[in-house]
Amino acid sequence: MNVVTTVIKSRHSVRKFKTDPVNDAIITDALECARHAPTAINHQPWLFGVIKEKKILQEIAGFTEHGKFIADCAVCFAVFGEKAETYYLEDCCAATENLILALQAHGVCSCWVAGDKKPYGEPVRKLLNVPDAYTLVSLVAAGSPAEIPIVQKKELKQVAFYNSYKKE
Amino acid sequence: MNVVTTVIKSRHSVRKFKTDPVNDAIITDALECARHAPTAINHQPWLFGVIKEKKILQEIAGFTEHGKFIADCAVCFAVFGEKAETYYLEDCCAATENLILALQAHGVCSCWVAGDKKPYGEPVRKLLNVPDAYTLVSLVAAGSPAEIPIVQKKELKQVAFYNSYKKE
Repeated sequence: MNVVTTVIKSRHSVRKFKTDPVNDAIITDALECARHAPTAINHQPWLFGVIKEKKILQEIAGFTEHGKFIADCAVCFAVFGEKAETYYLEDCCAATENLILALQAHGVCSCWVAGDKKPYGEPVRKLLNVPDAYTLVSLVAAGSPAEIPIVQKKELKQVAFYNSYKKE
Repeated sequence: MNVVTTVIKSRHSVRKFKTDPVNDAIITDALECARHAPTAINHQPWLFGVIKEKKILQEIAGFTEHGKFIADCAVCFAVFGEKAETYYLEDCCAATENLILALQAHGVCSCWVAGDKKPYGEPVRKLLNVPDAYTLVSLVAAGSPAEIPIVQKKELKQVAFYNSYKKE
């Protein structure tokens, strides 16, 4: 059993959180993981916002369609990408996943809320005073889980093939 | 020190591999991690190809601009996304990152080669006989590292802000 892959496979999206805060050392370690993500030609086109202020969390939640629970999380990360970079979305998604897995490794659960292609990307960017060169890629609401729903995934044989795809 | 975040932060892109094969159990564990990635509305719009045949690796390498080293890797993963799904790119990038981190956790190094927005996406898809509903998102060349180049990243203070962005 590998500790790392066990943690990766144990992650589930959590939208209900306890009121406990998330330790600053955990937040910093998650950001450290995010900035070590793979990035095309080492551009690192990312900017990570860390939001703990209740009023700002409530405003962000209010902008979203499926992220109302952000109002009640302990901390929300907002990942922005430099939109002029061709691979900003890939790079920022890799960074978002590193951040989520790092939190999970510290026992902090989370939920990825889409930012790119969403109309609330701009209001969130303006609210956080982020320069126009950036666009919102993701919001990650995090905290101690109050409930961990287990969602079934497709089996491996349904989503993997070896050397050449053959329809079953 | 957290084992998981240490592994996440220790990952570097590797493009030179030893000739040793990658154990099938490691490949399966990496795929298991990939299929447990976060995915919008649980769509799981992914398909993972595992390529070990030398001739196919050489053909894929030949199609790419910056992936010539794929010809000499032990195994290459090709991650495809269902292009009709709005968030196929986000989901498949999260899955790609899970796959890369799982390999790293088993001591297998890798390099993410872009697929989406690249002209060779279509030839790779056809070569692997993947249905037209899918599009190539990433290629991950993997193996035992022959060389691990350390690339410097921006410092955390350059890429993170708290509550509201302030230009330095």
